[in-house]
Amino acid sequence: MTAESDRTLPGPGDEFHVFDTTLRDGAQREGINLTVADKLAIARHLDDFGVGFIEGGWPGANPRDTEFFQRARTEIDFRHAQLVAFGATRKAGVRAEDDPQVAALLESGAPVITLVAKSHDRHVELALRTTLEENLAMVRDTVAYLRGQGRRVFVDCEHFFDGYRADPEYAKSVVRTAYEAGADVVVLCDTNGGMLPAQITAVVRTVLADTGARLGIHAQDDTGCAVANTLAAVDAGATHVQCTANGYGERVGNANLFPVVAALELKYGRKVLPEGTLAEMTRISHAIAEVVNLTPSTHQPYVGVSAFAHKAGLHASAIKVDPDLYQHIDPELVGNTMRMLVSDMAGRASIELKGRELGYDLAGDRELAGRVVERVKERELAGYTYEAADASFELLLRDEVRGSVTHFFRTESWRTIVEQRPDGDQVNEATVKLWVKGERIVAIGEGNGPVDALDRALRAGLERIYPQLAKMELVDYKVRILEGLHGTQSTTRVLVTTSDGRGEWSTVGVGENVIAASWQALGDAYTYGLLRAGAEPQQ
Amino acid sequence: MTAESDRTLPGPGDEFHVFDTTLRDGAQREGINLTVADKLAIARHLDDFGVGFIEGGWPGANPRDTEFFQRARTEIDFRHAQLVAFGATRKAGVRAEDDPQVAALLESGAPVITLVAKSHDRHVELALRTTLEENLAMVRDTVAYLRGQGRRVFVDCEHFFDGYRADPEYAKSVVRTAYEAGADVVVLCDTNGGMLPAQITAVVRTVLADTGARLGIHAQDDTGCAVANTLAAVDAGATHVQCTANGYGERVGNANLFPVVAALELKYGRKVLPEGTLAEMTRISHAIAEVVNLTPSTHQPYVGVSAFAHKAGLHASAIKVDPDLYQHIDPELVGNTMRMLVSDMAGRASIELKGRELGYDLAGDRELAGRVVERVKERELAGYTYEAADASFELLLRDEVRGSVTHFFRTESWRTIVEQRPDGDQVNEATVKLWVKGERIVAIGEGNGPVDALDRALRAGLERIYPQLAKMELVDYKVRILEGLHGTQSTTRVLVTTSDGRGEWSTVGVGENVIAASWQALGDAYTYGLLRAGAEPQQ
Repeated sequence: MTAESDRTLPGPGDEFHVFDTTLRDGAQREGINLTVADKLAIARHLDDFGVGFIEGGWPGANPRDTEFFQRARTEIDFRHAQLVAFGATRKAGVRAEDDPQVAALLESGAPVITLVAKSHDRHVELALRTTLEENLAMVRDTVAYLRGQGRRVFVDCEHFFDGYRADPEYAKSVVRTAYEAGADVVVLCDTNGGMLPAQITAVVRTVLADTGARLGIHAQDDTGCAVANTLAAVDAGATHVQCTANGYGERVGNANLFPVVAALELKYGRKVLPEGTLAEMTRISHAIAEVVNLTPSTHQPYVGVSAFAHKAGLHASAIKVDPDLYQHIDPELVGNTMRMLVSDMAGRASIELKGRELGYDLAGDRELAGRVVERVKERELAGYTYEAADASFELLLRDEVRGSVTHFFRTESWRTIVEQRPDGDQVNEATVKLWVKGERIVAIGEGNGPVDALDRALRAGLERIYPQLAKMELVDYKVRILEGLHGTQSTTRVLVTTSDGRGEWSTVGVGENVIAASWQALGDAYTYGLLRAGAEPQQ
Repeated sequence: MTAESDRTLPGPGDEFHVFDTTLRDGAQREGINLTVADKLAIARHLDDFGVGFIEGGWPGANPRDTEFFQRARTEIDFRHAQLVAFGATRKAGVRAEDDPQVAALLESGAPVITLVAKSHDRHVELALRTTLEENLAMVRDTVAYLRGQGRRVFVDCEHFFDGYRADPEYAKSVVRTAYEAGADVVVLCDTNGGMLPAQITAVVRTVLADTGARLGIHAQDDTGCAVANTLAAVDAGATHVQCTANGYGERVGNANLFPVVAALELKYGRKVLPEGTLAEMTRISHAIAEVVNLTPSTHQPYVGVSAFAHKAGLHASAIKVDPDLYQHIDPELVGNTMRMLVSDMAGRASIELKGRELGYDLAGDRELAGRVVERVKERELAGYTYEAADASFELLLRDEVRGSVTHFFRTESWRTIVEQRPDGDQVNEATVKLWVKGERIVAIGEGNGPVDALDRALRAGLERIYPQLAKMELVDYKVRILEGLHGTQSTTRVLVTTSDGRGEWSTVGVGENVIAASWQALGDAYTYGLLRAGAEPQQ
């Protein structure tokens, strides 16, 4: 039906697709609940990493996803990725052009559309409640209609492997129908995650031979084999892999993007990322975990903080002889570092690299670099994290380089009161007492919470002397409670993102409670902002 | 050298070995530090599960391991497992019978001994610092000596797959030497975890054909493929799998015992466990996590609390028709249960299922079910989430069913003060004013943060009337800031987990600020806890 020449011309690298569905399928993970701002932040990280496709959600089905597509078009300047809208084939008995769900996919403006289609006979009959023939027509019509509207189309065959077991001919007819109607890729989905690699290889090989369609793979991790299943499909000829960052997804999760891509690049020798981005993998994995507000898994392959940590005494001495004897890859290839346990998170190499990024040459001063490493270790032990708080790290670095603490004000004291009154009214009030350029300043603030009130009081106190603050705005605020099981003292970590309209920066604070931690993060935020604005720090 | 008839006679089931090394290799995991009592407790759980072999440690190398073998002999009455001692081949240039390390293996009394042997030429030369010939002699002598002492011997070929890549003939000569000297099984180890399943299958198949030895597999998870690699070796003819509970192990970890065994039993249809113990798998996985003091992974295949949790509304309606459509196995086979997550993607079907789980028949009352769905949607729009707050959902359901709000107290007002004093001291203080059974109660609390102070004040006010509260303890506390970009009003969500020693429950609160949200979550937590404890709510 559609000639090869009529397909969207593949750009460089189109012969293999790294397709990310963190924002759609990954968001199904229990405990993840993404705002539009979260989705935009994750999309930027994924684009930095260099995936080819970012599935953003189901526009029309969910107002949040509709808004995401609207905003992504104007707010993100994608360098590598194309945005993909996810949706279903048309309803039974309705023309594709008359189906509002299909219209919403077009309205999203996404250049690529993934359509989910049933390929398991029992699902067509029991869940979709239509005939096998009508299901094929739904696939054919919807693909052809969207192709006619100039969109590239991928088709996800839901429950493909179970469907293939039940009725291989019908399952293959769905693949053929989608491909002949103009789908670029037909994706075989192990939706309930029950498959094992050898089975995947056998089925993908047969379907490829029998249909000639370009095939993709979407694996869930219910047997603990999603990464292997994805690679097994590639072994059999699939050229499109659907994954999620950190393996987030429904139930156990999806195929984890990071070990899949690392295996393709480092074990298969296949270039699937832009030059140089593989070394960003560890940072990006952790940054996405921060956005979704989940602790990064310490034991995740390649990117976990323990992934190259050596404990066994047996190994430790031999590692000194030759680390390659005990590591399957050089951890720097994925932006991670080897750790001999008893030591901590930050290594000198990554600190030096980070310093260079910020314009400080630490490699030339081993004593200084060592001091910074020590300082970072000690702070990370106390709960700080610098991966997601560049500005706080830069302040730490600056202070170590100069040998003095950068400050624009000194704190005498502060106080917050939160009150729920008998009439139901709520009052949030803060007082701050500061010293600025020899002057004692007392200011108060009211807000919608104690931190907001504290922020307003701080700004009220400083703005007369530092008018640059007027341009700065808190744009994100995150709280994480660290540890604290069974009565142990818990620690609170606060991450604040601030904007001055030209850029954003993030700072961190840690303390016994959320107010004290917020005060620190706010202090760093305004100190960094004032430096950025060219204000002169106090002596 | 050793005739087939001279080998230890295999008992029933000896044709396939499930070999657990949690106590030896699993203990290498960062953060695990096992006492002898821990090791004994884990050994009992593993024996209950029905593994064939439990590797207990390296007697002689470690006093704790020596003690473990002594005590295990008298304190555990193993029903299924045999105890295995781990050690190395004799030192270069020493007779096996003169090597104290080898003697310690015999002294452990373990009927089975696993010997680690080098099979990678570079490791022999660089780490062991001996000749390739002497290494073979070390393997031959040690195996023969221990066999002569009446022990069954398995040989772990360390770094086998890298060794095979570097020098396949030498690697195979180690296998042959071990087998001919009387080892029952030669285990091919992917020590640095860098392999992928297709490579494992190819190598195991060739080694099996070329040596005729009985082969085992020991896989590490550095590529995220340890489970698949283990199964790939079985596909190629290996009949002995080495795993650890929950995949504990060095760096990323080892092949996880539970998904390996579940795949063998449920996907391969191979009986590798005693009758009936597979259904204990979830309980045993969590129990072992408790012993090593790590939170059980919520997303572990088969046994994680999320492993059979369903969120998407799209699926929920079909699950009612037939759960098998969306689950790869019946969760009861592994002792887990299906859970419906209540979320804004959920429709009436998932609410009904959740209601049934909690003992409310909503299917029979469409009007009531509709009201609950509306209430949940409206609350989720406001920022509540019920998928992680079962207890708050049950209270909501209870209130809708009864048409009245369940409460044990009424709030007149509350207030918190957080103060950073000029002397650096921090003060957190809370006051609550409550009405309980017609009595007005005023109470104060101090804590390490405003929420802790509020919690203490609330409990101080209520404990006299509801002494059941004394048993309840806050065990987890999470904060999430929702939205709040560019000055929009942000919302704070708090999740609290409470324990009464017998079980845990989670509640949610949402508000303009963290204190108000916490107050709600605490209120739900104690209301649910008091209901659970049988206290009578107020009218």
